[in-house]
Amino acid sequence: MDLKSIAFFLKFSTSVGRAYNLIVTGNVFLSKIICMQPLTFYQKQFVAYLEGNQGPQEPNGLYGPVTYILGLGGKRLRPVLTLIAAELFGTDYRSALGAAMAVEVFHNFSLVHDDIMDDAPLRRGKQTVHEKWDINTGILSGDVMLINSYRFLEGYEGNVLKELFLVFNKTAKEVCEGQQYDVDFETRMDVTIPEYLKMIEHKTSVLIAAALKMGAIIARASTKNQDLIYEFGKNLGIAFQLQDDYLDAFGNPETFGKQVGGDIIENKKTFLYLKAMELANEKDRETLLQEFEVQLKDNTGKVALVKKLFTRSGAVGATKNAIAHYTQLAFGSLSRIEGDEEGKRVLRLMGENLMERSN
Amino acid sequence: MDLKSIAFFLKFSTSVGRAYNLIVTGNVFLSKIICMQPLTFYQKQFVAYLEGNQGPQEPNGLYGPVTYILGLGGKRLRPVLTLIAAELFGTDYRSALGAAMAVEVFHNFSLVHDDIMDDAPLRRGKQTVHEKWDINTGILSGDVMLINSYRFLEGYEGNVLKELFLVFNKTAKEVCEGQQYDVDFETRMDVTIPEYLKMIEHKTSVLIAAALKMGAIIARASTKNQDLIYEFGKNLGIAFQLQDDYLDAFGNPETFGKQVGGDIIENKKTFLYLKAMELANEKDRETLLQEFEVQLKDNTGKVALVKKLFTRSGAVGATKNAIAHYTQLAFGSLSRIEGDEEGKRVLRLMGENLMERSN
Repeated sequence: MDLKSIAFFLKFSTSVGRAYNLIVTGNVFLSKIICMQPLTFYQKQFVAYLEGNQGPQEPNGLYGPVTYILGLGGKRLRPVLTLIAAELFGTDYRSALGAAMAVEVFHNFSLVHDDIMDDAPLRRGKQTVHEKWDINTGILSGDVMLINSYRFLEGYEGNVLKELFLVFNKTAKEVCEGQQYDVDFETRMDVTIPEYLKMIEHKTSVLIAAALKMGAIIARASTKNQDLIYEFGKNLGIAFQLQDDYLDAFGNPETFGKQVGGDIIENKKTFLYLKAMELANEKDRETLLQEFEVQLKDNTGKVALVKKLFTRSGAVGATKNAIAHYTQLAFGSLSRIEGDEEGKRVLRLMGENLMERSN
Repeated sequence: MDLKSIAFFLKFSTSVGRAYNLIVTGNVFLSKIICMQPLTFYQKQFVAYLEGNQGPQEPNGLYGPVTYILGLGGKRLRPVLTLIAAELFGTDYRSALGAAMAVEVFHNFSLVHDDIMDDAPLRRGKQTVHEKWDINTGILSGDVMLINSYRFLEGYEGNVLKELFLVFNKTAKEVCEGQQYDVDFETRMDVTIPEYLKMIEHKTSVLIAAALKMGAIIARASTKNQDLIYEFGKNLGIAFQLQDDYLDAFGNPETFGKQVGGDIIENKKTFLYLKAMELANEKDRETLLQEFEVQLKDNTGKVALVKKLFTRSGAVGATKNAIAHYTQLAFGSLSRIEGDEEGKRVLRLMGENLMERSN
């Protein structure tokens, strides 16, 4: 079932569904509702493939946690992007299921190890692996997931395998580097905006970009198109992460899904903070610095004050501008891709939906 | 410089060197001394390559520990085997340096993560990574080493890449499984001898076997020869690990390099223990069980008693027989390989030297 036939079918369909855990509200255009359906379709196909390819189960102490974390759900954004990219360039999504699995298993490996490093008790509302089992289990199960992510590339041959291997290796390495920069920034007081952007690019965006590029590689898209879809994913990923920074402070508590103000409470040097430190007057900068040096029990006053300083300094406006800038960069790359127009429309609407999360 | 020319050169050389940290003593035949030289040669070539291919250094918090652990030395047994296997089948060792690095970096990744899991303070007489830095650093630096081990395969093309990829993936997965079995066995009282053998095969032997097979793949050896050299490595690895179990209890404290009796003190269910539990009379079995349920401050009496029970039960003899059995299996496979006879001789002598460690 290709993108065009899905869209054609959906034009005559009146069903309005939920996709990507986004609540489709009245302000979403009908075209978007129509185009979210294919995403649900790919998501379902991917989850069915994942459930049918769980791999070995013994020793259970090793693979039980793998099944657990992969079964916790999530949006499956990255693997769906791989499937859509393959179809965009004229190849049946089924040939991209292996690469989609590689991307999703790698992503979940990084979550398991990051959760240990962050000492996080919860993931998707459930216990993290190291919390449900122990740290050693989290380390070893994470390791075998990283290895398994490579094993899902075994079905590819020749140049396709080589190209997938190269982009996957590079991306995996960059994700580790991004995580390290994130750790380093916790104790550094002189983080610059370009450094911060590089960190989120590595930690978040390159895997989204690679997911798309891998679909394009499988479809034998031209190098130019591969690069364009990579750039689309990379810039959309940066925009998405900047929006996450913004929503963490200014999101709607009812729809954001995380504790609003969490970054402020944890003294995280987000884009908002770094911009505020750059733009605020001396007195406000002093106040911000002081606020980000303390850990309080009751943070109500701190969150309110810091948000006021973020707004007054112009950091909120600057963050919104940066989000718009990277979104436009992403859509610019997408528009230059020579591929199926319906597929490009799906990606564009998917991007728009991601960037229209409730604030 | 191929094996034959090295051996020819060495026939006229009177230098007697140390290799593989084995002290060449009077009871070693001259032929062995001659043949250990090529190992030093490959070791040196490998270390030079390793030092010239350290890869990225930034962020230093990520790559500093990688440089540190790879610089701690060690015998470089696995990568040297890859190089020798390539030459054995007629290919210049230099084309196998990438695969050799993959094997060595993977091995060191597994050491870094195992040391965290075992809470080990020392590795090769120096601080372990998580001890020198912290656990999070050990996790993340280990991760990037695992990824980097794959990156060292990037220089290969086509079928060679595919075959290396398959054996490397399978091996990496098995090493994790072996580690999990090892962890599981700590709390299980019903471990069988076949289960124990499977554990050491996965945890130790398959990487030695894969190191050799990867050299054979690069040299485009026949499938039959690839399988034979894999079997050689696998069985030699099992013999080596069984010997390690034996030497841990009965080795010469001056030359063994580890605390003699360490496994007994830690109540490790080694081959000696499992065999003793199988062969001992009821009373001795009871005593052994009791001894392996306590943690003492002074272990002098315990070590002496357990060693007596190991000997009296016939477990020592059975262990020596098993070592001989797997060594013979290994050399049987080696003898059936169709390859350069000088190379086979080097591998045989290398195996004999490994199996002749001081007891």
